[in-house]
Amino acid sequence: MTDFSSAVFPVETMAVPGGQETIVRGGRHLFGSLVEGFAGVRRIGVLGWGPQGRAQALNLRDSLAGSGITVTVGLRPRSASAAAARAEGFTEEDGTLGDWLAVAADSDLVLLLVADAAVARHYPEIFAALRPGSTLGLSHGFLLGYLKETGDRFPDGVSVIAVCPKGMGDSVRRLYVQGARVNGAGINASFAVHADHDGRATDRALAWSIALGAPYTFRTTLRDEYLSDIVGERAILLGAVHGIVESLYTRARLAGADPVAAYRRSCENITGPIARAISADGLLGVRDALSGEGREVFDRAYAAGYRPARELIAEIYQEVADGTELRSVVLAGERLRSTPMTPISGSPMWSAAAEVHARRGAEAVPVDPFAAGVFVATMTAQVDLFAELGHPWSEIVNESIIEAVDSLLPYMHARDVAHMVDNCSTTARLGARRWGPRFQAVLEQIVFPAADGAGGGDPALVEAFLANPVHEALAAAAKLRPPVDIAVA
Amino acid sequence: MTDFSSAVFPVETMAVPGGQETIVRGGRHLFGSLVEGFAGVRRIGVLGWGPQGRAQALNLRDSLAGSGITVTVGLRPRSASAAAARAEGFTEEDGTLGDWLAVAADSDLVLLLVADAAVARHYPEIFAALRPGSTLGLSHGFLLGYLKETGDRFPDGVSVIAVCPKGMGDSVRRLYVQGARVNGAGINASFAVHADHDGRATDRALAWSIALGAPYTFRTTLRDEYLSDIVGERAILLGAVHGIVESLYTRARLAGADPVAAYRRSCENITGPIARAISADGLLGVRDALSGEGREVFDRAYAAGYRPARELIAEIYQEVADGTELRSVVLAGERLRSTPMTPISGSPMWSAAAEVHARRGAEAVPVDPFAAGVFVATMTAQVDLFAELGHPWSEIVNESIIEAVDSLLPYMHARDVAHMVDNCSTTARLGARRWGPRFQAVLEQIVFPAADGAGGGDPALVEAFLANPVHEALAAAAKLRPPVDIAVA
Repeated sequence: MTDFSSAVFPVETMAVPGGQETIVRGGRHLFGSLVEGFAGVRRIGVLGWGPQGRAQALNLRDSLAGSGITVTVGLRPRSASAAAARAEGFTEEDGTLGDWLAVAADSDLVLLLVADAAVARHYPEIFAALRPGSTLGLSHGFLLGYLKETGDRFPDGVSVIAVCPKGMGDSVRRLYVQGARVNGAGINASFAVHADHDGRATDRALAWSIALGAPYTFRTTLRDEYLSDIVGERAILLGAVHGIVESLYTRARLAGADPVAAYRRSCENITGPIARAISADGLLGVRDALSGEGREVFDRAYAAGYRPARELIAEIYQEVADGTELRSVVLAGERLRSTPMTPISGSPMWSAAAEVHARRGAEAVPVDPFAAGVFVATMTAQVDLFAELGHPWSEIVNESIIEAVDSLLPYMHARDVAHMVDNCSTTARLGARRWGPRFQAVLEQIVFPAADGAGGGDPALVEAFLANPVHEALAAAAKLRPPVDIAVA
Repeated sequence: MTDFSSAVFPVETMAVPGGQETIVRGGRHLFGSLVEGFAGVRRIGVLGWGPQGRAQALNLRDSLAGSGITVTVGLRPRSASAAAARAEGFTEEDGTLGDWLAVAADSDLVLLLVADAAVARHYPEIFAALRPGSTLGLSHGFLLGYLKETGDRFPDGVSVIAVCPKGMGDSVRRLYVQGARVNGAGINASFAVHADHDGRATDRALAWSIALGAPYTFRTTLRDEYLSDIVGERAILLGAVHGIVESLYTRARLAGADPVAAYRRSCENITGPIARAISADGLLGVRDALSGEGREVFDRAYAAGYRPARELIAEIYQEVADGTELRSVVLAGERLRSTPMTPISGSPMWSAAAEVHARRGAEAVPVDPFAAGVFVATMTAQVDLFAELGHPWSEIVNESIIEAVDSLLPYMHARDVAHMVDNCSTTARLGARRWGPRFQAVLEQIVFPAADGAGGGDPALVEAFLANPVHEALAAAAKLRPPVDIAVA
């Protein structure tokens, strides 16, 4: 399932636990082959100017400069984003900015990057606008899940591909820009071929991914992408992070820490030193850097936290696979038009963020072993569930670990978690609001008492962690990664 | 919709906001008319020996003693409850205990009181066993919602009625026994006629309700019953209570209270003095008993808590009405067969319960104005949503207020909330586990900061509370209530 071949781009094999995956390593030295990869595509229409739309339109235009392939941005009538797109040089005058349906009709490759709610409401008009023989491109699987709910399907005579960067749009652009100095800097991406009418879908997807700057590209299915994407953002990428930092903050305050100290032992710790340690040294590296009592604390927290996290993520996965989660997102869409979600940034812990941010540099914050044990247990629980359910290893490590520590957590470190929850996509925000409190409750009511109690969890879980195949998979992915600065501007 | 007539039992009208409802007042003086009300019914089969099955089988047998109508208990093969039923005098020897399908086939009125999970798995066998012309009796609307999910329907040729006591089975039996001393003691019930093949369904339902000891019986639809029942247990009856007491406990601890003092300002306060005050003096009575600063604190908490609670309960209602909530309950059924739910009784706050319980009597616990404001705001939010959506006022006040303060909260006062969550029906437990943390998060992240901040919420909300029509509806229901001791044995 993860194997593929390309007539244009050099494929490599990557050793993963139990076998190997075919991948394509990216880099600017391949930009000269993009025209061949995009053979038959003269116009690429990017619909939407959200974080992904903006980043992908800019990266594609830069990568295809002088190629003769035009990148056009398509926006809804009276879109508030038109000014921003013009400011980046996409204009009606030169035909690189237009109405989304007109752009869809004029393009050979149409990248549907508008918000999920808009996709849900308007996909029939967009499908109707697509030219027979053109290619529809997606960057996550939401539409596949939504069509399953509505009993509808993709249009006949149109190829359907996906290229899914494993990071937020902000990172997709920022790291691409760094790629001018460090060849291959970028965000890894998965690709999927859902319908291929001319036999060129794979090369087209690979060209798209390379043009976005993906250091390496691996294959998945739209269904696996959909499941891991929606589950991941509800779990370790966002929802679980919010629940973990809220519960750790309260735990520290109850233990007598002042707000600044408590913030450092919760949000600051996970988005800062813990994320950096995982990014640099992997999951094992976090534990290896601890010794004596610190390692014992990590192990107790890990052993207490693993099973409850695994159960909760299994519940999330089941609801996403069943369609229940998506049904509630669609329901919320109706509700939110009359009653918008209240922000959660008023939670007391965020009042400590500014002071902690201001003191960065002056005072180093060491890894908190308890926070690290809880966080790594939750991350590993997601990895193990995805592996048990047969997701490709590249998808597992990118969706569960690399996207977290190299894209989302650095962003949260710069902005804080509440800002991220309140400002991410509606689908992700609803998921974080829905599941974050579940993680918080499980931690406060089940995990912390177990970690602090006599039992303290099953030590065999720590043994299993040490022998977990994910370490091999993560190391293999790390070999494909250029040395880049992941700091958020 | 709430109007009805009876050829057997005296109906009365009850003034409610904007009109009146038809009701039947219960009492032992009516037991002589039960045979007429049950005309055509010689055998009543009670399927299941959960709290409702046990209470209803015992109450029906006592009420029908000497009437010639037999009450038989039907259990699944090798049911662990057989010994308990025999101990209460239901035996194979005298034909009052048997296999559930055989009992279903032999009975003129079949009360389906087995657990929801068993209903979901076995309803086709039970439907197949029912005799044409017999009557199927339900005590909540789960099966209606489940049939909607499965696209199935009730069997032809069988009448379908519901009598839904607005209290847990434990209370249904306990208050019935008190009825021997205080005529009319019992738990109010709603009834619904879903299918009526012989024109006798209404009298049959009224006879059933009177035989259970309902002080008064009002009419609803199976659909309204289903919605208010499933939403109510996720909100003010259980889920919200859990979220409220957890968040209030943590709030008190963070303010420096020791565990015992914090427990008294959270769980002890709501299940004790606040529940008693509402039961005795209504929602307004709680506020009226406060003065000066106490009333200001109540008003601030109420004004901050109302809208977020209303939004969350609207979300719950929407998911229940859509079927999404039930779909997740059914999904969980599969999951829980391999992984049972971890109890939440390990949460730190419950360790304080024993000492607080032990000191009862010695030290009186006054109403905490903040806890009262938050709790009454949440209860009123549920009332207002149900009223807006057209539920009968009797259903609203019984499902949102009376069941809480006269049945569930007294039980939680005796046992504690975690015990109740861990030991209630799977449907209710899943709902409390799913939504309780949402209430906790909303309180900690949105409501408490607003109540403590400069704004403190919209005072117009308190004005609206003072003028809320629910006070009139609750007073009308209170007139129908016998003076009974609601203490849990």
